[in-house]
Amino acid sequence: MNIPQTSFPRVVIIGGGFAGLAAAKGLEKQELQVVLIDKHNYHTFQPLLYQVATGGLEPDSIAFPLRKRFNDVENYYFRLAEVTNVNSEKNEIETTIGSLEYDHLIIATGSTTNFFGNKNVENFAMEMKSIPQSLNIRSLILENFEEALLTSDLEERKALMNFVIVGGGPTGVELAGALAEMKKGILPKDYPDLDIRLMKINLIQSSGEILKGMSDKASEKAEDFLVKLGVDVWKNLRVLDYDGKKVTTNGEDHFRAETVIWAAGVKGESVSGLQNECLIERANRFKVDEFNSVIGYKNVYAIGDVACMKSEKYPYGHPMMAQPAIQQGRLLAKNILLGLNGESLKEFEYNDKGSMATIGRNKAVVDLPKWKFQGVFAWFVWMFVHLFSLIGFRNKAIVFMNWVYNYIRFDRETRLIIRPYKNKNKHSFKE
Amino acid sequence: MNIPQTSFPRVVIIGGGFAGLAAAKGLEKQELQVVLIDKHNYHTFQPLLYQVATGGLEPDSIAFPLRKRFNDVENYYFRLAEVTNVNSEKNEIETTIGSLEYDHLIIATGSTTNFFGNKNVENFAMEMKSIPQSLNIRSLILENFEEALLTSDLEERKALMNFVIVGGGPTGVELAGALAEMKKGILPKDYPDLDIRLMKINLIQSSGEILKGMSDKASEKAEDFLVKLGVDVWKNLRVLDYDGKKVTTNGEDHFRAETVIWAAGVKGESVSGLQNECLIERANRFKVDEFNSVIGYKNVYAIGDVACMKSEKYPYGHPMMAQPAIQQGRLLAKNILLGLNGESLKEFEYNDKGSMATIGRNKAVVDLPKWKFQGVFAWFVWMFVHLFSLIGFRNKAIVFMNWVYNYIRFDRETRLIIRPYKNKNKHSFKE
Repeated sequence: MNIPQTSFPRVVIIGGGFAGLAAAKGLEKQELQVVLIDKHNYHTFQPLLYQVATGGLEPDSIAFPLRKRFNDVENYYFRLAEVTNVNSEKNEIETTIGSLEYDHLIIATGSTTNFFGNKNVENFAMEMKSIPQSLNIRSLILENFEEALLTSDLEERKALMNFVIVGGGPTGVELAGALAEMKKGILPKDYPDLDIRLMKINLIQSSGEILKGMSDKASEKAEDFLVKLGVDVWKNLRVLDYDGKKVTTNGEDHFRAETVIWAAGVKGESVSGLQNECLIERANRFKVDEFNSVIGYKNVYAIGDVACMKSEKYPYGHPMMAQPAIQQGRLLAKNILLGLNGESLKEFEYNDKGSMATIGRNKAVVDLPKWKFQGVFAWFVWMFVHLFSLIGFRNKAIVFMNWVYNYIRFDRETRLIIRPYKNKNKHSFKE
Repeated sequence: MNIPQTSFPRVVIIGGGFAGLAAAKGLEKQELQVVLIDKHNYHTFQPLLYQVATGGLEPDSIAFPLRKRFNDVENYYFRLAEVTNVNSEKNEIETTIGSLEYDHLIIATGSTTNFFGNKNVENFAMEMKSIPQSLNIRSLILENFEEALLTSDLEERKALMNFVIVGGGPTGVELAGALAEMKKGILPKDYPDLDIRLMKINLIQSSGEILKGMSDKASEKAEDFLVKLGVDVWKNLRVLDYDGKKVTTNGEDHFRAETVIWAAGVKGESVSGLQNECLIERANRFKVDEFNSVIGYKNVYAIGDVACMKSEKYPYGHPMMAQPAIQQGRLLAKNILLGLNGESLKEFEYNDKGSMATIGRNKAVVDLPKWKFQGVFAWFVWMFVHLFSLIGFRNKAIVFMNWVYNYIRFDRETRLIIRPYKNKNKHSFKE
């Protein structure tokens, strides 16, 4: 992999997401060599993927090139690769571009969509964990509307205009809200020949309330906002199957739909080669101690979504979200340096700063430790928090500009089918 | 295709490029039904494709959704489809989504890359006539640099860092300049372990000067600027073949290169079904009279790149550029209306407002009818002309912001590999 051998200890970080980047940042300007490996050459700001999927943001606005991030940092190396195996006995990782020895290995590979073993759903439903996946959703929405125009069969038309989102967590809720805004805003304008009332957005939640991890007030208000926006919220309903045409549930209601987006679960994106208890648990995460060290290994760590740190407060590990990932990454960097200096390490304690979710173009629900609020003011809070979390002035400026534009004009510009998803074989399109 | 039958004459326009859009605009608010068909659901501002290919602009900035353009216009319909045949006897077109009768047919399908029958080159060289193609180039440039890092074989490394652009017209020149800026700016910062001096940009022109269609002064200065930027300009050299590894020419020089971009010729993107003299000519364009009517047909017209209107001044038809396309489109719309009112038609006469090309981040050459200038001032003129040609305030604002940012920061942000081009089979990447 052409990484020079030096006298410094080498820290290899697998994954440039929230956790990996936080760790990488914390290790800058030390007597260390850091190698960051990711299968993409950019960091994805995942909380805003749903905006890319519904045309509110260009993909480039939420993607940050990883090389740029560490341009001027000495002893930092980036490699575009996928890690295929960890050989802990040799202190070595195997990747698609060669092997690399490490002194410390930080696994920050994040999470991937959990289809709970259902192969049909995995084949036919859409995921939303990456930019290409979100662009595929964007293409599919528009392609289905183009098709809806052409059919005189009412049932087929309704199916093409029926959007089923499985999973009532923040991802599902935000996506549902954004689709509802498309229904109010640009879709009737772009497709005046379609009766927009035929468009349905169904949000299906297996438990008794959406936004389960937030306060009762937040869950109630979010549902209220969604219903007012025209979303059909289904609670205590579990999706059993989807064959590309019909969504089958454990209740009486089934759905004929051409667009199904699965946001009902995530699991760790683990790496092969390590034996670890947690892995056989459903969530596929590495079990770590309070220093994010992978149980059973000396110099291998896991942070973020792929790590499972059990405690009294969090018997199933921390929520798979940005904040725990960032905090774990930062602390692990500190601890590695403390360890190298022979000082005692600090235990991780999650500082829950709260959570938030947006519903539509101007409402949100925000739970802070001491203060919970919902509505338009919450939306402003949500917007500023996300805006300032984005890396890079340019990204912030473009996202801000897009939002102001959308807010004033009520018009999502970016409804382009750049790479057809559904119809790529149907039409003989030269690219 | 679900287009309602009305008492109005139906004008079908194939293609939403410069020509098609100009015609569509000119036919608004008349007692007509207009159906616009395009294989993309957006208009591509082609002059700035090279900026997408080199990461200076997001694709969404130069793409404008066609439905949005005609949102509030009555009797206007858009269909996402490819036209497969014209049945002039039945006054009908056949498309991938069904057949449609027309009263007037406007063919504005534009042009496509002309490989002059060389199948190897067609397979292995990159094109730059659409957004997906430009994104593929962007991915390839970055993927080749990532690969260059990993190889210790000097010849292989040089090949991965060797960029050959075939064709010294505005497209090739602008692309060469932008690549040269990448060599000066972001590439050495992102790849400090590579000796950037190994990166070569070769612009190959078969005739004796680049920018053949512009003034001698423009050609000289452009070459001067390119050479100062570090581009190797080869004149009187013809590329005979490219097998994916080596570019073979008719001279002594050959090039080992992993990136070859073919900008050496375009031909009309004709539609099957019409017999027309011009088609058997090399450029594949429909021969039209001075009213843009396709010779031999009564109610079929062709405008823009796909039309070949011979005259004394333009014995080979007009240059295949934006201005003739726009002017023909506008006049055809006028003439159709004049014709419907029984008035006499106006002959087309091309008003050559001049041409321009940019070289690098702050130089351009501009030929106006009475005034020719080159350098930094020319660049500002170039920038404002292109900026104001863009459709939509949002696109203008974002492009402007990007340019200001790039100019100040000298940093092209958008160096993302969103869809791997070269390595899509090599890595087992889940999207």
